[in-house]
Amino acid sequence: MHQLINFWPIARVISVLLLIIGMMMWTGIPFSAYYGESVLPLLYAGLTTITAAGILWLTTQRRPSDDTLPRPADVNIRKREGYLIVALSWTAMVSFGMLPYLYSGMLPDVVDALFETVSGMTTTGASVLTDIEIQPRGLLYWRSLTQWIGGMGIIVLTVAIFPLLGIGGIELFAAEAPGPTSDKLHPRISETAKRLWFIYVGLTVAEGIVLFVAGMSPFEAINHALTTMATGGFSTRNASAAAFPPLIQYILIVFMFLAGVNYTVLYLSLKRRWSEVWQSDELKAYIGLVVVVSLFFTGRIWYITGVPLEQSFRDSMFQVVSLVTTTGYVSADYTSWTPSLTMICFVLLFLGACAGSTAGGIKIIRNLVFFKNSFLEFKRIIHPQAIIPLRLNGQIVPGRIITHIFNFLLLYLILFVIGSVVLSMLGLDFQTSVGAMATSLGNVGPGIGGVGPVDNFAWLSDPVKLFLSFVMIVGRLEIFTVLVLFTPYFWRLN
Amino acid sequence: MHQLINFWPIARVISVLLLIIGMMMWTGIPFSAYYGESVLPLLYAGLTTITAAGILWLTTQRRPSDDTLPRPADVNIRKREGYLIVALSWTAMVSFGMLPYLYSGMLPDVVDALFETVSGMTTTGASVLTDIEIQPRGLLYWRSLTQWIGGMGIIVLTVAIFPLLGIGGIELFAAEAPGPTSDKLHPRISETAKRLWFIYVGLTVAEGIVLFVAGMSPFEAINHALTTMATGGFSTRNASAAAFPPLIQYILIVFMFLAGVNYTVLYLSLKRRWSEVWQSDELKAYIGLVVVVSLFFTGRIWYITGVPLEQSFRDSMFQVVSLVTTTGYVSADYTSWTPSLTMICFVLLFLGACAGSTAGGIKIIRNLVFFKNSFLEFKRIIHPQAIIPLRLNGQIVPGRIITHIFNFLLLYLILFVIGSVVLSMLGLDFQTSVGAMATSLGNVGPGIGGVGPVDNFAWLSDPVKLFLSFVMIVGRLEIFTVLVLFTPYFWRLN
Ligand SMILES: [K+]
Ligand SMILES: [K+]
Repeated sequence: MHQLINFWPIARVISVLLLIIGMMMWTGIPFSAYYGESVLPLLYAGLTTITAAGILWLTTQRRPSDDTLPRPADVNIRKREGYLIVALSWTAMVSFGMLPYLYSGMLPDVVDALFETVSGMTTTGASVLTDIEIQPRGLLYWRSLTQWIGGMGIIVLTVAIFPLLGIGGIELFAAEAPGPTSDKLHPRISETAKRLWFIYVGLTVAEGIVLFVAGMSPFEAINHALTTMATGGFSTRNASAAAFPPLIQYILIVFMFLAGVNYTVLYLSLKRRWSEVWQSDELKAYIGLVVVVSLFFTGRIWYITGVPLEQSFRDSMFQVVSLVTTTGYVSADYTSWTPSLTMICFVLLFLGACAGSTAGGIKIIRNLVFFKNSFLEFKRIIHPQAIIPLRLNGQIVPGRIITHIFNFLLLYLILFVIGSVVLSMLGLDFQTSVGAMATSLGNVGPGIGGVGPVDNFAWLSDPVKLFLSFVMIVGRLEIFTVLVLFTPYFWRLN
Repeated sequence: MHQLINFWPIARVISVLLLIIGMMMWTGIPFSAYYGESVLPLLYAGLTTITAAGILWLTTQRRPSDDTLPRPADVNIRKREGYLIVALSWTAMVSFGMLPYLYSGMLPDVVDALFETVSGMTTTGASVLTDIEIQPRGLLYWRSLTQWIGGMGIIVLTVAIFPLLGIGGIELFAAEAPGPTSDKLHPRISETAKRLWFIYVGLTVAEGIVLFVAGMSPFEAINHALTTMATGGFSTRNASAAAFPPLIQYILIVFMFLAGVNYTVLYLSLKRRWSEVWQSDELKAYIGLVVVVSLFFTGRIWYITGVPLEQSFRDSMFQVVSLVTTTGYVSADYTSWTPSLTMICFVLLFLGACAGSTAGGIKIIRNLVFFKNSFLEFKRIIHPQAIIPLRLNGQIVPGRIITHIFNFLLLYLILFVIGSVVLSMLGLDFQTSVGAMATSLGNVGPGIGGVGPVDNFAWLSDPVKLFLSFVMIVGRLEIFTVLVLFTPYFWRLN
């Protein structure tokens, strides 16, 4: 019997995932105990999650024999399973990930708990908490950890899963990414994933230590290290990064910037293969963008608002890096500077840092391909007979990849437009609609208007929160992965 | 000697164009005389323009002999001349077109006069006049006529010139458009142009008569007929279309709608070749869009604001048609309805009506190609081995055309973003920046924020007015035509 989707491997993956999530919850228990808070919410939430994982494992333990339920050999059907694994994994992670908030009563409303969990796991960092500092430390740690888990997950997704699914058209630029044949998958995924996790864990530990040495409490150092490397942006302070002294802010700038670099490039840097590092046009564009925009901001803030030069520079650099990397920490209210800087910050919500990092948004490489191609297009108009290829990292980019990227860019922008209209129909004003949509789709965190850097998402209605939760997942999974599930093509055998 | 550009034919074209413009100015003299106003501004302006045309003709009368300045045989160089003809024609038309405003003192400031002229000739219809009704009638007629001239020019451009220049990727859908070889150009242009002008003039006359019969004064009927068919939107009333009774508004709706239809389709309708008319997917999408959005607006306005049903329907229909066709007449302040309707109206500023009409904006066909392709893209993800072509009007659209269209869409959107940032740096607030940019690039007229339907552009600073003038021309000439002149590729021999 030829069937559309084989649920057995999906169930296995989700079972393992839930086991990991449950055990992760328990790592927060020491914090609760140390700070004299109730350990029960995290204990029970972990228990529930691990129990669910066990039940799922046991009910699917007997692998279906090959003649009753054959493993699909058809690659199209395998792809379907890939999408469903991603979608159902997210559903499971979010459903169980919000249990600590619910059990503790920190966010008794299920919509709020869902929003905060999705915002965490997608590494968005938009929050419905109006006062963060009064919350139990153990739960704040879990909140930060959701981002770290999400960041780790997204590295695996972009480096290993998305290329298999043929999404986004950037697979060819990740030198270490596995090829399109699934036979090669297993050894290379585990090899690649090991390196990435090593870098991810290593940078997190390094940042935690540096922040602690620079004067942060161990608890805050751990939390901020977790949410920086995930480009998540949850803070333990109401004022976010503005609550910390300049030294800490500079440290955060450095690590936010590193978190936005392609992990392949980070790996090459670690191996001191500098000539290969500097071949990355995306890295150069990323550095150039951050430096140029930061200096422009510095000049304008210093000149117009009269803020001292060092602070102008620090605030500029911090906010530009925070927005471009889609981290979303806030060291200054960027909507209070000047109308033009607000506008530029709004544009930054879309850019995204390097592909193959934990950053959200469009990603520098896609923007770069678009801009390079636009310039070449003018050349092509003048010389219609000539073949004028687009080069990146010294290599010609195939037309197929360019088309994929254009598809993505347009779909991203049109989703932004549709989402903004939906939000305005749900009652938000113009600026809040576009701000909330841009920041959710780009997994940034703060927006403009009513969801600006010094506001939060608590005041929004339930429909808005649910819609934005969906948008955050759509953005995080590079749009196609989620939306394809809602097309008839997905559910048809042919 | 091989030279980059041969200026001789360019000078000839501009000379003829200025002669026409000058004579068009004189057609306003009877109005000035009839209403007892001074005839001198139009008389002198026409005289100046015709004199300039004569001087240009005489100084270039002797065609350069073939050995000193050979006619370039290279098609690339011919294309360059095409672009320059378009750009310099516009410069000349605008420079002389503003003379009546300057000579009369109606707009003594040269920036204001330039803005109003560009806004007219690009058929945008944004105005710097704070009180229209006190202006001399002869000059208001000239103001309306600039739009009608611009509309006629753009039909020739889109049907005859742009396909030759290989712009926009919609050339293949205009059945009557000449092919890419310039040898075929001459007989087919004149044949096609004759038909188009017949329709354009015919519909203008028809509308003028209908408006007069419905109760408009002859002067106002003429003016509104001129600016409707150009999808221009200049009115002789401060309140725009809101100043007229329902019957007139319904008539304007019908003619605005017709002005937004592809002229090839209009021609086929005139010939009663209905089966060919109904093959146009763009026409169906255009009708569908207008009907669905209008009814949605009607429901919401009626339900939420309590305006009577007929008026809700009329205002909705009027504003939707006015914005989609990029005409820009105003029968109601669409920014005062609800936040979501403001947002949707803002989105409508981008759409544009059918290609091959006088409408500005992106055009339905490009939107249609994008949406169709996006849906197919999901199908392609599921079936990566299958070849899934995009069909329009029953025919497969080549990938090359799709790529052209995507280029255009992205360039349009990125110009909107860059322009909005520039406007915000020139001091405009967020909504006014995006509103002014969208409406100028789309040649619509009214925007949102400080340039909404009941505002005008008089209060903007000179740099803003100059920038928006440039943007209107960029939008009108489908971006590439103007911007290519600013690339180094254009000015290099190879
Ligand atoms: K974030
Ligand atoms: K217009």
